[in-house]
Amino acid sequence: MITVNHRSYHLPKQPTVVVCVDGCEPDYIAQAVAHGHMPWMKATLAQGTALVADCVMPSFTNPNNLSIVTGAPPSVHGICGNYLIDPASGAEVMMNDPEWLRAPTLLAALARAGKHVAVVTAKDKLRRLLGHEMTGICFSAEKADSCTVMEHGIENVLQMVGLPLPSVYSADLSEFVFAAGVKLMEGAAGPAPDVMYLSTTDYVQHKHAPGTYGADMFYAMMDRYLAQLEALGCVIVLTADHGMNAKTRMDAQPDVIWLQDVLDDWLGEGVTRVILPITDPYVVHHGALGSYATVYMTGQHAERLAAHELKLGRTRVHLASLVDKLGTLRGVEAVYTRAQAAREFELPDDRIGDIVVVSERSVVIGTSASRHDLGGLEVPLRSHGGSSEQRVPLVVNRAITGLDEQHHWRNFDAFDLAFNHAQ
Amino acid sequence: MITVNHRSYHLPKQPTVVVCVDGCEPDYIAQAVAHGHMPWMKATLAQGTALVADCVMPSFTNPNNLSIVTGAPPSVHGICGNYLIDPASGAEVMMNDPEWLRAPTLLAALARAGKHVAVVTAKDKLRRLLGHEMTGICFSAEKADSCTVMEHGIENVLQMVGLPLPSVYSADLSEFVFAAGVKLMEGAAGPAPDVMYLSTTDYVQHKHAPGTYGADMFYAMMDRYLAQLEALGCVIVLTADHGMNAKTRMDAQPDVIWLQDVLDDWLGEGVTRVILPITDPYVVHHGALGSYATVYMTGQHAERLAAHELKLGRTRVHLASLVDKLGTLRGVEAVYTRAQAAREFELPDDRIGDIVVVSERSVVIGTSASRHDLGGLEVPLRSHGGSSEQRVPLVVNRAITGLDEQHHWRNFDAFDLAFNHAQ
Repeated sequence: MITVNHRSYHLPKQPTVVVCVDGCEPDYIAQAVAHGHMPWMKATLAQGTALVADCVMPSFTNPNNLSIVTGAPPSVHGICGNYLIDPASGAEVMMNDPEWLRAPTLLAALARAGKHVAVVTAKDKLRRLLGHEMTGICFSAEKADSCTVMEHGIENVLQMVGLPLPSVYSADLSEFVFAAGVKLMEGAAGPAPDVMYLSTTDYVQHKHAPGTYGADMFYAMMDRYLAQLEALGCVIVLTADHGMNAKTRMDAQPDVIWLQDVLDDWLGEGVTRVILPITDPYVVHHGALGSYATVYMTGQHAERLAAHELKLGRTRVHLASLVDKLGTLRGVEAVYTRAQAAREFELPDDRIGDIVVVSERSVVIGTSASRHDLGGLEVPLRSHGGSSEQRVPLVVNRAITGLDEQHHWRNFDAFDLAFNHAQ
Repeated sequence: MITVNHRSYHLPKQPTVVVCVDGCEPDYIAQAVAHGHMPWMKATLAQGTALVADCVMPSFTNPNNLSIVTGAPPSVHGICGNYLIDPASGAEVMMNDPEWLRAPTLLAALARAGKHVAVVTAKDKLRRLLGHEMTGICFSAEKADSCTVMEHGIENVLQMVGLPLPSVYSADLSEFVFAAGVKLMEGAAGPAPDVMYLSTTDYVQHKHAPGTYGADMFYAMMDRYLAQLEALGCVIVLTADHGMNAKTRMDAQPDVIWLQDVLDDWLGEGVTRVILPITDPYVVHHGALGSYATVYMTGQHAERLAAHELKLGRTRVHLASLVDKLGTLRGVEAVYTRAQAAREFELPDDRIGDIVVVSERSVVIGTSASRHDLGGLEVPLRSHGGSSEQRVPLVVNRAITGLDEQHHWRNFDAFDLAFNHAQ
């Protein structure tokens, strides 16, 4: 057994694949199953283990992928978004670099324990975080044409997979992940992995609602590859980083709370800084609009507020009244102080702002209207980030008896189920 | 001006139509607009007034239709479901009879004030409640073949509309409502109405998700009739009785909490009685499964509990612990005591049980597995009843300046907007 982040895991006896299907609202599976497009999944739901779990907040890709591979919430691993204000420098920076990671991954520990580990991600942004201190194969479909044995543990990936390099904005990017996974498990790049982690992209889910043709075709593709992995003898656990919902007004335009504009109007410009942790280099399909934002009051602004406070009372009261006022905005689901958010969502309190705002299922949060380019939105916005996108599948292709269905399952229980219950 | 249920209304100067689109989750409109199927709606959203409102809880048809025509919540008008335990007799009965109505309708008051009023509903279950003490035309599409001047204020309806009698389970039932509305407004049955209330059925919404072909075709049909009503000079306010969501597990079967089974298991048979206020004679398309239930502890059971209490303390504590325990069930969103529910949802406290249970967006509540016939479900369950189906459109085909977008709009503000703001 190995212990990682205070959880103990049996070493796998069977080849094990954990799949994180980006943006996989459970209804995608339900509709595709109902329409007859997922025969493998239909059988697996009946004969294996079918749970619905909660992802971690914010319901974004990086925090959840890191939770899955560390078995722990963001308060432990430190990755609470794609983007933050660096507490050291005050600068807005990406959180893609492993320097932000505060906890070891189970993948690295498995490799250290002598297991062959392989990781395939859709986008390259996740690769370095997931592969941190891990020996083995770790590459992205996005950069599959430039893998080296030195850096990725593999080369000639396009040749191995037999598919062209996919566009970063495509369903093909995810198909490449599955196709590569099957090839690796077939032993096309040396011994078959003992443990494999596959992580797709939510390009399709941002564009297509559950049950529509585009979604059903994606899930049919996935089903074929999952059946192949099962045929190779794999224990498979399928989960997701987050769900996905329509986020539009009735005129099909994004339903946005322009939070920086609201706060500037209330408090004056420069008093607050709204950060959208969904922000990353790939924002074409969602315009950096999600249902989660964090608000910083920097030193200077805290002083300006304090000046206000002299008339009103203590600073704490002022922040609380701002939290209350934000809570009355149309489309806001909940507002938290830093401490409340850290406790409620198990977030690292030094990496979130003074206030956390979560919007409703059909509403997103932007900074200023002038700062978002929505020109790339070809279809009505679908996005995530809020509590309304926390429900995700947690499916195992093995029957597990005695599981408590009332237990609050998390997507980061995936490896625990795979190693400690499914084999 | 007239005053009804403590709200004052200007009498209409222009012909006015309030449309209640059964089960109209706002995304139905967004997707149909995005797909180019609602040209009238697209223009109206741009040039008129586009609000999203909350319907009343429980998010069922009868309570909301009555709220719209009384301008008041169920605590005032008394209709809090289709089905309840009669506090007088202890029997389970339908709430379709006007004897249950505790408040006058605006429709009756308008007729009394000399206005020509016409009401067309899809199903007959609503007709007698909506038409209570109202002079004018009031009939259902379901029974359009048997209208008499004496009872419905109109006869030969099929001939007037020029459509065959529709099936009660069909999109045609709603189309008949709109077609009849246009004919009435054209003066086909005497002078054109001054005020018309049209209420459709959610047959389509129970079967088809927003943006799918079946839904888009329904909304395209609706759009054509609304354009005709506008061309006739009507002020139109469109709202809904409730939204609609997928309520399935990943295997596409209904995701049901069998609440009576759970309570029987915890407390013994006969201690509680679970009532599903969605129950009515038309349950084929939802199997009487919605996201709202109420639990009665009858006299006998209260005594049995009281016997328990002797060991545990006072009865109140016991009920509170039951509420807490129900709240931990997977899929339960919130649990309320009678008093809490009455306050939170503005419900008549003598017509709900001792406990009210609301389930999550994708989960429904049933009584006992053995008591629901799900054989009529041809497609994955879509239903309503919960807080997750409270958002509904509130659209006016007139620009209204100075409206507070942060106001908590309700669907039962429809006539206030129509009479006091839009003309």
